[in-house]
Amino acid sequence: MAPALELLEKPAETVPVKAIPVTSNGTSAATPITFESPEKHQRVLNVFRAFIADLVQQYGDGHPGSPMGMAAIGIALYKYVMKYSPTNCNYFNRDRFVLSNGHACLWQYLFMHLVGVKSMTLEQLKSYHSAKPDSVCPGHPEIEHEGIEVTTGPLGQGLGSAVGLAMATKNLAATYNRPGHEVVNNMTWCMVGDACLQEGVGLEALSLAGHWRLNNLCVIFDNNSVTCDGSADVANTEDINTKMRATGFNVVDVHNGDSDVAAIVNALIAARSSDKPTFINIRTTIGVGSNVAGTADAHGAALGVAEVANIKKSTGLDPNEHFHIPQDVYDFFSDIPSRGKALEASWQAALGRYKEEHPEVAAEFALRVAGQMPADWTKCIPNKEDHPTASTASRKSAGVITNALGQTVKSILVGTADLTPSVNVAFKNKVDFQSPDLRTTCGQTGSYDGRYIHYGIREHAMCGISNGLAAFNKGTFLPITSTYLMFHLYAAAAIRMAALQGLHQIHIATHDSIGVGENGPTHQPIAVPALYRAMPNILFIRPCDAEEVAGAYIAAIQATETPSVLALSRQGLPQYPQFSSREGVLKGAYVFTEAQTKTQAVGNGSSRKDDDDFDVTLIGVGSEMVHAMKTRELLYEQHGIRTRVVSFPCTRLFEQQTREYKRSVLRPGAGKPAVVIEAYPSTGWERYADASVSMNSFGKSLPCKEIYEHFGFVPEVIAEKVRDLVEEVRVDGIAALRGDFREFNPGLKVGLGH
Amino acid sequence: MAPALELLEKPAETVPVKAIPVTSNGTSAATPITFESPEKHQRVLNVFRAFIADLVQQYGDGHPGSPMGMAAIGIALYKYVMKYSPTNCNYFNRDRFVLSNGHACLWQYLFMHLVGVKSMTLEQLKSYHSAKPDSVCPGHPEIEHEGIEVTTGPLGQGLGSAVGLAMATKNLAATYNRPGHEVVNNMTWCMVGDACLQEGVGLEALSLAGHWRLNNLCVIFDNNSVTCDGSADVANTEDINTKMRATGFNVVDVHNGDSDVAAIVNALIAARSSDKPTFINIRTTIGVGSNVAGTADAHGAALGVAEVANIKKSTGLDPNEHFHIPQDVYDFFSDIPSRGKALEASWQAALGRYKEEHPEVAAEFALRVAGQMPADWTKCIPNKEDHPTASTASRKSAGVITNALGQTVKSILVGTADLTPSVNVAFKNKVDFQSPDLRTTCGQTGSYDGRYIHYGIREHAMCGISNGLAAFNKGTFLPITSTYLMFHLYAAAAIRMAALQGLHQIHIATHDSIGVGENGPTHQPIAVPALYRAMPNILFIRPCDAEEVAGAYIAAIQATETPSVLALSRQGLPQYPQFSSREGVLKGAYVFTEAQTKTQAVGNGSSRKDDDDFDVTLIGVGSEMVHAMKTRELLYEQHGIRTRVVSFPCTRLFEQQTREYKRSVLRPGAGKPAVVIEAYPSTGWERYADASVSMNSFGKSLPCKEIYEHFGFVPEVIAEKVRDLVEEVRVDGIAALRGDFREFNPGLKVGLGH
Repeated sequence: MAPALELLEKPAETVPVKAIPVTSNGTSAATPITFESPEKHQRVLNVFRAFIADLVQQYGDGHPGSPMGMAAIGIALYKYVMKYSPTNCNYFNRDRFVLSNGHACLWQYLFMHLVGVKSMTLEQLKSYHSAKPDSVCPGHPEIEHEGIEVTTGPLGQGLGSAVGLAMATKNLAATYNRPGHEVVNNMTWCMVGDACLQEGVGLEALSLAGHWRLNNLCVIFDNNSVTCDGSADVANTEDINTKMRATGFNVVDVHNGDSDVAAIVNALIAARSSDKPTFINIRTTIGVGSNVAGTADAHGAALGVAEVANIKKSTGLDPNEHFHIPQDVYDFFSDIPSRGKALEASWQAALGRYKEEHPEVAAEFALRVAGQMPADWTKCIPNKEDHPTASTASRKSAGVITNALGQTVKSILVGTADLTPSVNVAFKNKVDFQSPDLRTTCGQTGSYDGRYIHYGIREHAMCGISNGLAAFNKGTFLPITSTYLMFHLYAAAAIRMAALQGLHQIHIATHDSIGVGENGPTHQPIAVPALYRAMPNILFIRPCDAEEVAGAYIAAIQATETPSVLALSRQGLPQYPQFSSREGVLKGAYVFTEAQTKTQAVGNGSSRKDDDDFDVTLIGVGSEMVHAMKTRELLYEQHGIRTRVVSFPCTRLFEQQTREYKRSVLRPGAGKPAVVIEAYPSTGWERYADASVSMNSFGKSLPCKEIYEHFGFVPEVIAEKVRDLVEEVRVDGIAALRGDFREFNPGLKVGLGH
Repeated sequence: MAPALELLEKPAETVPVKAIPVTSNGTSAATPITFESPEKHQRVLNVFRAFIADLVQQYGDGHPGSPMGMAAIGIALYKYVMKYSPTNCNYFNRDRFVLSNGHACLWQYLFMHLVGVKSMTLEQLKSYHSAKPDSVCPGHPEIEHEGIEVTTGPLGQGLGSAVGLAMATKNLAATYNRPGHEVVNNMTWCMVGDACLQEGVGLEALSLAGHWRLNNLCVIFDNNSVTCDGSADVANTEDINTKMRATGFNVVDVHNGDSDVAAIVNALIAARSSDKPTFINIRTTIGVGSNVAGTADAHGAALGVAEVANIKKSTGLDPNEHFHIPQDVYDFFSDIPSRGKALEASWQAALGRYKEEHPEVAAEFALRVAGQMPADWTKCIPNKEDHPTASTASRKSAGVITNALGQTVKSILVGTADLTPSVNVAFKNKVDFQSPDLRTTCGQTGSYDGRYIHYGIREHAMCGISNGLAAFNKGTFLPITSTYLMFHLYAAAAIRMAALQGLHQIHIATHDSIGVGENGPTHQPIAVPALYRAMPNILFIRPCDAEEVAGAYIAAIQATETPSVLALSRQGLPQYPQFSSREGVLKGAYVFTEAQTKTQAVGNGSSRKDDDDFDVTLIGVGSEMVHAMKTRELLYEQHGIRTRVVSFPCTRLFEQQTREYKRSVLRPGAGKPAVVIEAYPSTGWERYADASVSMNSFGKSLPCKEIYEHFGFVPEVIAEKVRDLVEEVRVDGIAALRGDFREFNPGLKVGLGH
């Protein structure tokens, strides 16, 4: 049975926050809070808002409205609620904070400055939107900078990351905490605006947070009712509180988010002891205190010199003072560094006791904290002689490795977007990551130390959440996701965020190429590889057999600052034990087989100069290697044409090789043509080849064998084309091909070659 | 005020469907329904399910479970509720049906056969998953085939399309219906499974349907509680009914969807007279009648020969008869063709009366029905002499055209994903597409004949919905969307569906290139162009000035079977009235300026052979044309190097030109190098150039001027590189560049050139 969801009445405006029994999230140790006076709060708010207005005015561009509107929320979080250490932002058990509405970053930067984050100087703050290339205050928060957990900006992505961060804590806590020893128990706070709650990736992530009952996650909604287009209800009139309750959240309202710091604090504190994730709906006024308060005009433009002065005057500040933070405002936050140090010390002490009582698990935990992957992952990669010799789908070859890794390496979390039967990533004795309270209608259960993740049919959130997992103390987790390659297009914006942040991830992308077959053109991922090959800092790898799959996995695991996409076949692929090489994969491309030797040269007796040692290079890629190898045979048998074959699983890795290596693989100076064979558009292959057998159209619903034939991936057809090209080059020379890339794509011409 | 949303109690199991007052959706004409007997229904269900089991068994692959489970829903729709004409599937005022769970297509194909869709023969049905390339029964429904409204398969996309189809009806009805003359009043029915309700694009689309109160939309949930990974609650335990109510839907439960045809019919009929969109939650059993009923095993694999026999035996059918449809089952549906013809006749008669009473508007309506765009769109494109001469952002140049089109062409619906202030698409006197009941907190209103669409921050649904708009009788609507180019990555899976379906759309993609500036690397769309350039059947166009924007818009409007993405700058761009040409854009690339003539040749006195008429070709693209042109000047002034400049706004259009034209533009035979300058990865440019000044990394948060400098887009720096290349070619010859593509990308080397 699915856990019943409460169907609460919408709380009346005056209902106080309900006290909820303390649960297992371990973050409930109640510390009595001593509030500063409302006057002091107001003073800090005034100075904060004036400073924001000054900053945005300085460059005449930026986002003043949200930071001003969220000021009281910031006081609640940074002064009263969040557990962190500004002098050591990486303190392991810190609460994680994610600004999903990343355009409001000035808010975060300024609070970081006020609480004493060392790198966030006044000068740095003033570099926002400036021409300084070493600014730590970019237009959106970036993970590279001290105190920033994840890069945000593209809306909804931060919410995905926050869910991943909260999962990371849950999994570590369930795995390593012991009775009386809570060495991991941090909260994750995620600030969102209207946009994050409209974006699909955010909605998907919220559904999962509710399903998993991540009660260590608190989503804080800066509900200012304004977006770029005006009032938010121009495009959204849903009942968000009811929706969030139906999604599995506890919902708390705060009605005066502009100044009622105590109400915000109480709501946040309640989140620490909730049995579900918490959604705090805080009504704020965008650009509060300015003459455009509450309107879209406050969102994304400077307020104007006169208005900035007005804002200061109306709150008793000196309009002629700019970027001014009086000492009493600094004093207001002066307890934070020592409080942070005390937190650290307390955690270190707890860790000491834990080590004494649980030395073995503590040693393992220490490795995880150090972000080190146990070396025994190498044992999970089969040796060359262990591969099957019969035709095997590369999704299955990868599955062997995923299975071993899943069983062996605790930092690895394996997930799927509801394709367990197809993607071969479920490992032996897997335990599902689930709330221990869950029991499905089919009796499936799980627990928080489970490392197999059912993401549902939510590819975008799967990858967005994986970003949070990978960003939680980089190295502590290595998330593996899985779906069809086609649906990595749904997830592309999240995978891009991983590449941008240098996050270690592996994306198992099965049902690659047109070999998908019957599912048809909607599921044949034409053009998707072009995206991932062009994207910086990502490895897109198409292995051709089990040995290359091993190489691909090694490359992906070794690339600790880079996500990888492994494109794997649905269909069986011939194995090439004589030719394929994991070392070759690590170099991106390599000589699969040299041309037939001259002494073997027979055939149609065509003339050949002495210095020739081959006639053509065929570049075989992934599941189309079989076409390259068969064409090579035919060319030799029927025409005496001697063919080198290059395997080219990864363009990015190849580009990292030396010029000498690259030339030894491709032999551009030999004056012989090169033809690439891949069932994707030829884009990008022009760098390495003179011609392509590729797909310049969408695919078709046909069985695997027939679809290849339909689109001309037929050795006999290809051999004819290549023979003509070789002949042309013999006659006219290779130079004639310059600027004349040939596409041997029969495209939609039905039945070609048959 | 936002319209208040009802917070209904979850209806008890026995609560009858609530009768709701008839509203303006015009589809409420109550026809009394005479039900066939439950026994007859059961007979049809049995035969239907046996046939499905046979079909999937035949090829040993496919999806039997959902089609079997949804059989009773099909009887309700095809026999009793949907208004359509099987002998003329394109009857204009037909109800639209979308199978968003496209893998259940056999269900639709078989019903189409039973009701008499001519092309859907028994032989065709049997071609499902076969090797026949002319099958009308592909693995997912495809728009090319009779009776299919939109291609579906990638989950959630159908829901987006359905919302678009429902909007199309609303807009046409509000624009053309007159009192007593409802010439457009069809319903849109959308079948969904669990997946569509989990996918972000589906959730975004549902939010909008609720917001817009599209009461002509009915979402039918095949709630079989099973997905590939097992029971659906392994990844989803939300309260969907409450969530849908909070999203603005009326929710109706049907508890026995396996056989209670009457209950389903009543729920569907109620949807016709709802004041909101309707969500019907129908409990069904996947693979009902088989031994794997209710389990994931019924989802995506054949049931086995023995089990198929069992299914038949248990329902009194002959296990030895395959693909058998007894005459009484055909008879059950035999009234449908004549009913459909009567519908058509009645609509034609109504149309006749409408023409008589409202001849002018009827003439306009007839054009829309014919899918013809009024020719006066050409007047909306400014003449060359009307462009500004001062530096102008291309988003602004495009805005001039969008403004004129919006005011002039009624088939154009202009939308934005909450970026009205930035994308320049809001047109004069625009009326928002909104429910007439809406009044926002800021007093904004709209109506269904409005043609400006606030999609909220939902890029994926914006493009998914645009697919439905464009697919509603192709040509009747030309949707224009707008957001930053970066966020076309969020929407990529939907835009791909437009390309696949040949849908006419224009996507205004502003904040192109690194010129975005301060927003930083999250917002600089590195790699996005590579995707759209590789994608079949789409035009990705980067114009360099206002004249090229005019050309881009013309190309996009003329490509009636192709979506276009217009990549436009945030920053001001110099105008090139002497060089730029709309005709050139239509050819994809063209000679912007030839090299300086010899008589002008001065400089450093380097030697030059007589047959030289240029030294190098620079390819300038979009907002980087300015770098090409400035570099050209420098090369000549400082080194006497004579430079041709080619403008290259669209690779797809260029590839469609003759070989002669292409060679005349690029001059590959001249033996001179070509260098492309574009602030994107060089992928694909290798076809046209020997070297690139491009981006091999993500961007950075810096102002526009400084970011270009930071990444080496500095004419002085580029000129040095080009001079070296020209010199190298002079010495070694062009052949030496073969296989040695040069990337002149300073990348992250800070401060290069400064």
